[in-house]
Amino acid sequence: MARIGIIGSEGRMGRAIAEAIVAAGETPAGGIDRDGDATPLAEAADILIDFSSPGALEANLDAAIAAGKPIVVGTTGLEERHHWLIDSAAERIPVLQTGNTSLGVTLLAHLVREAASRLGDDWDIEIVETHHRMKVDAPSGTALLLGEAAASGRQVRLADSAVRGRDGITGAREAGTIGFASLRGGSVAGDHSVLFLADNERISLSHLAENRGIFSRGAVKAAQWLLGKEPGRYTMPEVLGL
Amino acid sequence: MARIGIIGSEGRMGRAIAEAIVAAGETPAGGIDRDGDATPLAEAADILIDFSSPGALEANLDAAIAAGKPIVVGTTGLEERHHWLIDSAAERIPVLQTGNTSLGVTLLAHLVREAASRLGDDWDIEIVETHHRMKVDAPSGTALLLGEAAASGRQVRLADSAVRGRDGITGAREAGTIGFASLRGGSVAGDHSVLFLADNERISLSHLAENRGIFSRGAVKAAQWLLGKEPGRYTMPEVLGL
Amino acid sequence: MARIGIIGSEGRMGRAIAEAIVAAGETPAGGIDRDGDATPLAEAADILIDFSSPGALEANLDAAIAAGKPIVVGTTGLEERHHWLIDSAAERIPVLQTGNTSLGVTLLAHLVREAASRLGDDWDIEIVETHHRMKVDAPSGTALLLGEAAASGRQVRLADSAVRGRDGITGAREAGTIGFASLRGGSVAGDHSVLFLADNERISLSHLAENRGIFSRGAVKAAQWLLGKEPGRYTMPEVLGL
Amino acid sequence: MARIGIIGSEGRMGRAIAEAIVAAGETPAGGIDRDGDATPLAEAADILIDFSSPGALEANLDAAIAAGKPIVVGTTGLEERHHWLIDSAAERIPVLQTGNTSLGVTLLAHLVREAASRLGDDWDIEIVETHHRMKVDAPSGTALLLGEAAASGRQVRLADSAVRGRDGITGAREAGTIGFASLRGGSVAGDHSVLFLADNERISLSHLAENRGIFSRGAVKAAQWLLGKEPGRYTMPEVLGL
Repeated sequence: MARIGIIGSEGRMGRAIAEAIVAAGETPAGGIDRDGDATPLAEAADILIDFSSPGALEANLDAAIAAGKPIVVGTTGLEERHHWLIDSAAERIPVLQTGNTSLGVTLLAHLVREAASRLGDDWDIEIVETHHRMKVDAPSGTALLLGEAAASGRQVRLADSAVRGRDGITGAREAGTIGFASLRGGSVAGDHSVLFLADNERISLSHLAENRGIFSRGAVKAAQWLLGKEPGRYTMPEVLGL
Repeated sequence: MARIGIIGSEGRMGRAIAEAIVAAGETPAGGIDRDGDATPLAEAADILIDFSSPGALEANLDAAIAAGKPIVVGTTGLEERHHWLIDSAAERIPVLQTGNTSLGVTLLAHLVREAASRLGDDWDIEIVETHHRMKVDAPSGTALLLGEAAASGRQVRLADSAVRGRDGITGAREAGTIGFASLRGGSVAGDHSVLFLADNERISLSHLAENRGIFSRGAVKAAQWLLGKEPGRYTMPEVLGL
Repeated sequence: MARIGIIGSEGRMGRAIAEAIVAAGETPAGGIDRDGDATPLAEAADILIDFSSPGALEANLDAAIAAGKPIVVGTTGLEERHHWLIDSAAERIPVLQTGNTSLGVTLLAHLVREAASRLGDDWDIEIVETHHRMKVDAPSGTALLLGEAAASGRQVRLADSAVRGRDGITGAREAGTIGFASLRGGSVAGDHSVLFLADNERISLSHLAENRGIFSRGAVKAAQWLLGKEPGRYTMPEVLGL
Repeated sequence: MARIGIIGSEGRMGRAIAEAIVAAGETPAGGIDRDGDATPLAEAADILIDFSSPGALEANLDAAIAAGKPIVVGTTGLEERHHWLIDSAAERIPVLQTGNTSLGVTLLAHLVREAASRLGDDWDIEIVETHHRMKVDAPSGTALLLGEAAASGRQVRLADSAVRGRDGITGAREAGTIGFASLRGGSVAGDHSVLFLADNERISLSHLAENRGIFSRGAVKAAQWLLGKEPGRYTMPEVLGL
């Protein structure tokens, strides 16, 4: 049983990770929050999961390096300089950084890229997502991640291909575009479908999250996978062997 | 077997109706097109189906009245004065006028109105539709018809409630609104879903057209139902007993 | 704010109801469990919700009658004699008894009955449900409830119409039958779809439960609705005005 | 423009292929049926598509070899000796044999295998399909093909894993099984969904055929791809570069 330490333990994600650690049969090694010093936690744990803030990243990586422990970084809002810090840390310890810890979404993005690379432009691509009524932006970050996967499969840039908020007299659909549509309502944790539509047939590749527990569960899976790895920078697709 | 005459017989819809008449076990009584005089057709047929043009409506109704035959009017683009003509004709013969001859869509609209009237504002309503890549407008006419049904069930005006083309920083969803989203691609004849989303549960009411044959089939069903009725103006919901 | 008392408060459902009472803005009036006497609870509460056991029903109804308080009975496994007890109690207090407290499922059943009564036998009816991997029976009770609604809409008996576990050389589908199919896996709280399939078009009426909280939430809604009613026996559809 | 000859040209599939050849911008080189001799057709065409019968296969392959022309074999009901004949012919001409010429289904099977190989046994696999009311067997051949893809991804045998026709008291779902469910009704050309269900999240990979034209269209795509290839035996996945 691995002892897993949580940085950012008081946030909603931190508490969910604590539950997921126990559910996965591992041992919670405690947590710190806000301006807490991660050094003792890094000493006590076999591995760290960081869902705190970009401002705390450097100190957290330093604590992990000092203790020689691997770290999963799920903190969002990272900028270029944070990625340099991660690259640098990865020379000495294993680091897995990701903006989306869901294994299902990670696999779906892989399948979307694969499908888009095999199917020609006569298969139109549309992405539709549904989220709870409190969500303030559209499309969702995951929908855009899936759009990037589709664009990459087709070897085009998403920025050049995306059609968003279709409404009114739009004219016929332009070949090669990738459409996005967003539904909002209820307490939906997150539905995503990528449609490939050709003459007479359609393929749809979909993911449904029943609740947000999939992110904490995926973070723990990533930690379990990262344990014992060589120093280096890793990604979620590698956890699935992709 | 009823003899059914087609006004507008050379259009795509007219030809589809001719096939649907045979498939329904009835007898095609021939057809006319463009500026043809409907009088002989009205004499020869037991009932008429008109999918021609607004400009031809008055002469067609006159021919039906002269022959004392019922008529199904599926012509689109009607204005107020056309509806007066229909009301006037309906004093002497049975007339069924409709902008959508699909029985499935007609029933769906009824179910949507019913659901919207029973569920409170804590159930968010979203409408999503998919059509082929050549469609030039969004949302589809049928999606708007379903939106009207939802608004009517809630006793609000759709114009005050509709949210279309959601994109970017939208803020949280406003209670009582009705959202629309449109997907385009392939050769999809028409998918429509109306979602009712509450905390922890969702209802979806959907219709899928495999091809456009549902409109000609519904027009023939309407004609069969209209035969033998008293003079008056009728609607598609009545064909389903609604 | 109504004070709501819970009989069967220590079960999973009882605890969920306690949370739902607070979420609905009402006041928990405490609870009793197992062989506890419901009399003090009935005195202290404005209304009771009973999710205990058939064996405790008679004493619970007596306590409600003695205190002159309405009661929602969600206990399952009731036999004929329990229904007599309920009928008798309903002469003196308002009683709402139901085997399914989900508002969404209640509405869906109503829509299914309505659709089945309007669409002819040329619309084939199929019911498909998905539940978590621990469920030991198929089809689900809710799928059968929806099947009863469809059969009742068609004025046939479900026992004469149901086709279950389709597999192998089945021959062509028999007109008028109602098919059932069951999927099992993951932690699915409950998906149900009723399909109406005709030539060239289909309607699907679906419900998805994100978690089992819909039952406790519905029980509290039922209690809120029942408060202040005349003595009598009520049902879930009435809560929705059906 | 390639000249494409059709063996089995009078069947429903043969006529659909003739239309698909024109739609794809190629030239129909005529066809033969029943006991016709394929030799003149093989001379006149650049490539042959054979959807006739197993009994005619040997003579058809001989005609293709004599003329030095590639051949797509879509004939069903082949036995082991037919596959030897094809292997033998493939030493001298390009031969593509397949039991399913849909490009969409071919891709879907690939994605299903990929997903099944990446996701552990904590993701339950279920396959559900819907077909028209005249279909006499269940599950569909395509559902079984998708089941084989899933089993192969998991490195198990489908025969050991399949659970079909779930009904009654089934007990909890057994880990590692692959469930099948079949719906029948209307004129559905073929819907297939493969579900991967884990705790709190689900992936579904689906294909919908609007009509049976996808098979003739895929056969023509296969022929276009096969033209100019070296002698050898090829498969549908190779047409997609898989």
